Amino acid sequence: LRALRWYAPYDVRVEDVPEPRLVKDTDALVRPTLTTICGSDLHIYRGHLNIVPGNILGHEFVGVVEEVGAAVRSLSRGDRVLPSCWVADGTCWYCRHGYYTQCVNVNIFGFGPVYGESLEGALSELVRVPYADTVLSKLPDDVTDDKAVLVSDTLPAGFAAVQEGGVKAGDMVAVVGAGAVGLLAGLCAKLLGAGEVIVVDVLPERLEMARSLGFMPIDASLADAAEQVRSLTDGRGADVVVEAVGGEQPLLTAIDLARKKGTISVAGFHIHEYTLPAGQLWLTEKRLIFCIGDPIKYRRELIEHIRAGRLDPSRMITHRLRLEEAPKAFEMADRKQGIRVALTP
Amino acid sequence: LRALRWYAPYDVRVEDVPEPRLVKDTDALVRPTLTTICGSDLHIYRGHLNIVPGNILGHEFVGVVEEVGAAVRSLSRGDRVLPSCWVADGTCWYCRHGYYTQCVNVNIFGFGPVYGESLEGALSELVRVPYADTVLSKLPDDVTDDKAVLVSDTLPAGFAAVQEGGVKAGDMVAVVGAGAVGLLAGLCAKLLGAGEVIVVDVLPERLEMARSLGFMPIDASLADAAEQVRSLTDGRGADVVVEAVGGEQPLLTAIDLARKKGTISVAGFHIHEYTLPAGQLWLTEKRLIFCIGDPIKYRRELIEHIRAGRLDPSRMITHRLRLEEAPKAFEMADRKQGIRVALTP
Amino acid sequence: LRALRWYAPYDVRVEDVPEPRLVKDTDALVRPTLTTICGSDLHIYRGHLNIVPGNILGHEFVGVVEEVGAAVRSLSRGDRVLPSCWVADGTCWYCRHGYYTQCVNVNIFGFGPVYGESLEGALSELVRVPYADTVLSKLPDDVTDDKAVLVSDTLPAGFAAVQEGGVKAGDMVAVVGAGAVGLLAGLCAKLLGAGEVIVVDVLPERLEMARSLGFMPIDASLADAAEQVRSLTDGRGADVVVEAVGGEQPLLTAIDLARKKGTISVAGFHIHEYTLPAGQLWLTEKRLIFCIGDPIKYRRELIEHIRAGRLDPSRMITHRLRLEEAPKAFEMADRKQGIRVALTP
Amino acid sequence: LRALRWYAPYDVRVEDVPEPRLVKDTDALVRPTLTTICGSDLHIYRGHLNIVPGNILGHEFVGVVEEVGAAVRSLSRGDRVLPSCWVADGTCWYCRHGYYTQCVNVNIFGFGPVYGESLEGALSELVRVPYADTVLSKLPDDVTDDKAVLVSDTLPAGFAAVQEGGVKAGDMVAVVGAGAVGLLAGLCAKLLGAGEVIVVDVLPERLEMARSLGFMPIDASLADAAEQVRSLTDGRGADVVVEAVGGEQPLLTAIDLARKKGTISVAGFHIHEYTLPAGQLWLTEKRLIFCIGDPIKYRRELIEHIRAGRLDPSRMITHRLRLEEAPKAFEMADRKQGIRVALTP
Repeated sequence: LRALRWYAPYDVRVEDVPEPRLVKDTDALVRPTLTTICGSDLHIYRGHLNIVPGNILGHEFVGVVEEVGAAVRSLSRGDRVLPSCWVADGTCWYCRHGYYTQCVNVNIFGFGPVYGESLEGALSELVRVPYADTVLSKLPDDVTDDKAVLVSDTLPAGFAAVQEGGVKAGDMVAVVGAGAVGLLAGLCAKLLGAGEVIVVDVLPERLEMARSLGFMPIDASLADAAEQVRSLTDGRGADVVVEAVGGEQPLLTAIDLARKKGTISVAGFHIHEYTLPAGQLWLTEKRLIFCIGDPIKYRRELIEHIRAGRLDPSRMITHRLRLEEAPKAFEMADRKQGIRVALTP
Repeated sequence: LRALRWYAPYDVRVEDVPEPRLVKDTDALVRPTLTTICGSDLHIYRGHLNIVPGNILGHEFVGVVEEVGAAVRSLSRGDRVLPSCWVADGTCWYCRHGYYTQCVNVNIFGFGPVYGESLEGALSELVRVPYADTVLSKLPDDVTDDKAVLVSDTLPAGFAAVQEGGVKAGDMVAVVGAGAVGLLAGLCAKLLGAGEVIVVDVLPERLEMARSLGFMPIDASLADAAEQVRSLTDGRGADVVVEAVGGEQPLLTAIDLARKKGTISVAGFHIHEYTLPAGQLWLTEKRLIFCIGDPIKYRRELIEHIRAGRLDPSRMITHRLRLEEAPKAFEMADRKQGIRVALTP
Repeated sequence: LRALRWYAPYDVRVEDVPEPRLVKDTDALVRPTLTTICGSDLHIYRGHLNIVPGNILGHEFVGVVEEVGAAVRSLSRGDRVLPSCWVADGTCWYCRHGYYTQCVNVNIFGFGPVYGESLEGALSELVRVPYADTVLSKLPDDVTDDKAVLVSDTLPAGFAAVQEGGVKAGDMVAVVGAGAVGLLAGLCAKLLGAGEVIVVDVLPERLEMARSLGFMPIDASLADAAEQVRSLTDGRGADVVVEAVGGEQPLLTAIDLARKKGTISVAGFHIHEYTLPAGQLWLTEKRLIFCIGDPIKYRRELIEHIRAGRLDPSRMITHRLRLEEAPKAFEMADRKQGIRVALTP
Repeated sequence: LRALRWYAPYDVRVEDVPEPRLVKDTDALVRPTLTTICGSDLHIYRGHLNIVPGNILGHEFVGVVEEVGAAVRSLSRGDRVLPSCWVADGTCWYCRHGYYTQCVNVNIFGFGPVYGESLEGALSELVRVPYADTVLSKLPDDVTDDKAVLVSDTLPAGFAAVQEGGVKAGDMVAVVGAGAVGLLAGLCAKLLGAGEVIVVDVLPERLEMARSLGFMPIDASLADAAEQVRSLTDGRGADVVVEAVGGEQPLLTAIDLARKKGTISVAGFHIHEYTLPAGQLWLTEKRLIFCIGDPIKYRRELIEHIRAGRLDPSRMITHRLRLEEAPKAFEMADRKQGIRVALTP
């Protein structure tokens, strides 16, 4: 069985690994048919998170059920499935209230023991899926792997950012970061009726991608983004801002881009403490909505939008390689080549 | 004409002052009949804000119209009126969208030139009110000064905190700070159907006041408040937390008290930058709602609740003095004697 | 095995019946521990619905699992369970969207073949439950049968009426009909922050019950209810009206009681066509929300309210008999003695 | 002064009329620059409403202020203004709560004494406008008369239908009637993110208009509309249906088109009582939202959508004539030629 293991910063290798097995009777084994490299994989790749050397990476994927535990009710061998990258037990208080990403047994594929139990990832020929009835959902035949794969992580992240951020018809929405989360947040904002969507980045090809999707690109290396956004809104700023990069500076930029009484949806990856302008936030009454998306909560309606042709997340997949080339794929993603690299077995 | 002027930290004096006059034809002159000392007055008293020596303090008041400018449509001499402590022009983009506290011409009575135009306060026998048609609303005869006065600032602050914080039936609400904003936020939370309301403070008499209003008091000097709140909620924390003190530590406590996917409504007074746990906020997907209340937006429904007997903000008024005794009143408020000191002419 | 069978209008008999068996592997068998006679049972009793003679009645109940089919995942023999009176498959488009009462395979216990497949009721020592994983939920130990039983039908009906009717803090709510649905709708309205709750009926003991629950009773036999409601609201009418009787006249009364731009939640039992004042409804812009409650959707939060002491539906149970006395119980319910008759095996 | 007067069914004449004067100091006189013939004008034209012979018709218009009463604050001679066809006092309970169409002093231009005080219409060279500060709003220079005129009645009607009907991203929306209200409701549905919009009518040119606006036309004369809508939704029906014709049969069709738990927004003109399938509505839990639009409430955001290019109601204006030709214009409108006839002085 072949899989991609992380050993040290920038050191990942495709190797033979032991075959995963069912551990609990609520587990399933899934054979990934398409796996992508997501932004948070890069945090691991670069050594920002404490995962254990040898752990298999990969958490955004679709696949086919190979085997199910005795207690799995909704799935059978051979089913095409859409996993949630977030593992949730489906029964705790948070799950019962629809907050699956805050499950008391939460985990993410490929994050080693970051969340307690060590969980191997999906850049592998076979992956063990806990709480399969909750984590996996059957994929309709008419939704291709390309269209479905980002529903396991990135698309719900972008959707949650604008949905929980309260985007409504005619809103001016600004997105900081033209990566996959940011661009998909922009598409979801349009779906919710947003008026103008502005996308701020510094990479020319990403800004071009933003333009091709119908957004107004702003090159933050050439001009002050907040000033430009304000000049488009009689000096006010955006109604809703999606922070889709992570880190202190993008968050401060996002706060700056929002109008008074505006909302900042924080979808980027954050680990540290930052010095935030609390006094300014209070005087201008802004709202900071931290949200990481929730595939289990949002996948049903997102798949409906995809089937109806209202959303096409496959446009984010700009490169394709085989699992054996995964180290090269990580190098490309690390250098921000394209938007998303997808890997087939 | 007698009024209370601020000269330096802890130095306020009741003096003869020149009579205010109508400056624009949208102004009115109001004779205050009851004025209170609010928490933000204390920030000025202590020298935390750059107001100009000699400025008249006071912004939470009710009164009677003495004179109106030629363009004032809705008011006449003799009308009992409820002012908003926040002055707003009623016509800018923010006002038209119902965000009066973010008016481009915003100001607060008694805040000297903090907001541009210098505006004298209501601890005076007569006060000039700009944009009178927007700032003032007529007071129904059956609502006493005592019941109405806090609607000009503090009650809308408490109400906005729970309303914009999304409190719903059965929610566990925690309030940090048993001052007037916090206690009124608690009463408003109950009005919205909150299940349990927990109030955290360290002063015994304020905790006793919280208990007498039907809340569960937690003495933060005796125990870890977050631990106690979590022990009441199977380890989770409060659904909505109202920060009603101001400053870094109360905000950090409020963040800590909220459950994952919970909301922190920041109603306290904030001026500075703080180091906030962005990584933790993101992982636990909390929402930070900064809101300062909005008397113009909320006064109609709050007056309805008061008339119907569903809210009684007059319970906050624990001490009464005359305007001539205002310096003594500031000393009492500074020492946190009681909840609210009210002054009559 | 003893059970209550319907034979003809007003002719019900407790008899020996064949033991129910599991038919599908998603079925469970449940031993009822408490069953009530609900208003819709009376429609059957009186012959308003086409059920087949010999059918066992009863659909509002709690019980203990006796046996589960091979595919039932969430339950085991011995579990105390709260059923939904509405049977739903949990997988169709409606169920996936949270509209369980509109499931394409919907059915109700004891409604014979009204909904296609014949389904026996719970006034029996043992009852077959289809789609057990969806229809049944485990009951926490600290919620007694008395408190839980109405969550299987009546309490969600009352809750849906006010929740889907949009009751908010301070609303004046009027309820037509002081039966169990109406009284529980009133309690739920209070839970959502309603200001005044008015209850209209003609039976003195029911009006007295309304008064004892904190509502304002109006005896429609003595006065024009709409006029009285309007006199309490400066001539306007109620913000939200719950129609909780069924039939044309109560619906017309409910429409009349609502203010312009108000909402009528229709929770009563309706079978026929009525002549409705469409022109009047349009001119006054009223909203008619037909809703029958949804135990599967609402039971989790309702049980939470009950455990927290915020709702006590057991107050509706005014009489208790044994299953063998069920014919007598029907006679009592038919004569509107008390609010709810509950039967133990 | 020339104006169009109604004398009897199908008998309207352009005549010299006395010049209107200010009656109250809150009145204004407005010189219409563009007036349209709306569907409700046709009801008067045909004699369905009891207006007084000699009354001047016309209520959907834009114009220029000629004179203002002494108490009018927000307007001056020469201002371009957008009136609301609904006259409201701006101060009663309904107005204060944002329900201007239910004002206790409500009236409509050109409806003679239908609403109490007789009010002349806008098919005139000069028209008196009561409560000018509430009824009129200034029109931005960059919004042409063509784009603005329908905001005084028809566009808010279409917008309210989908907004108050709760249309959300991806919804299947069906519209009964491809007149101006229906087509604008369709455009507003798209603005709110609706997935598919289906428009049902029988007139080929109106169906073609629907197609050209991006909707799916269904010719109800050729096929069963409800069956077709269901065939597009796996047998369910539309999520939200807008009834935009008026009368019993269109309302029954709209009810039929909605899925279970779906919403019918009734925007058509209704005067009579109808026999409605209450039993069926209850079993399928549909929601009937009667709403007539509210220009005062919605004009600000609608003008923003128009300025931003997200809505263009001027596409409804298919014919243009002079005021002197108004009788001919009524004949055309009566024969349903085009969508909207507009008249200039």
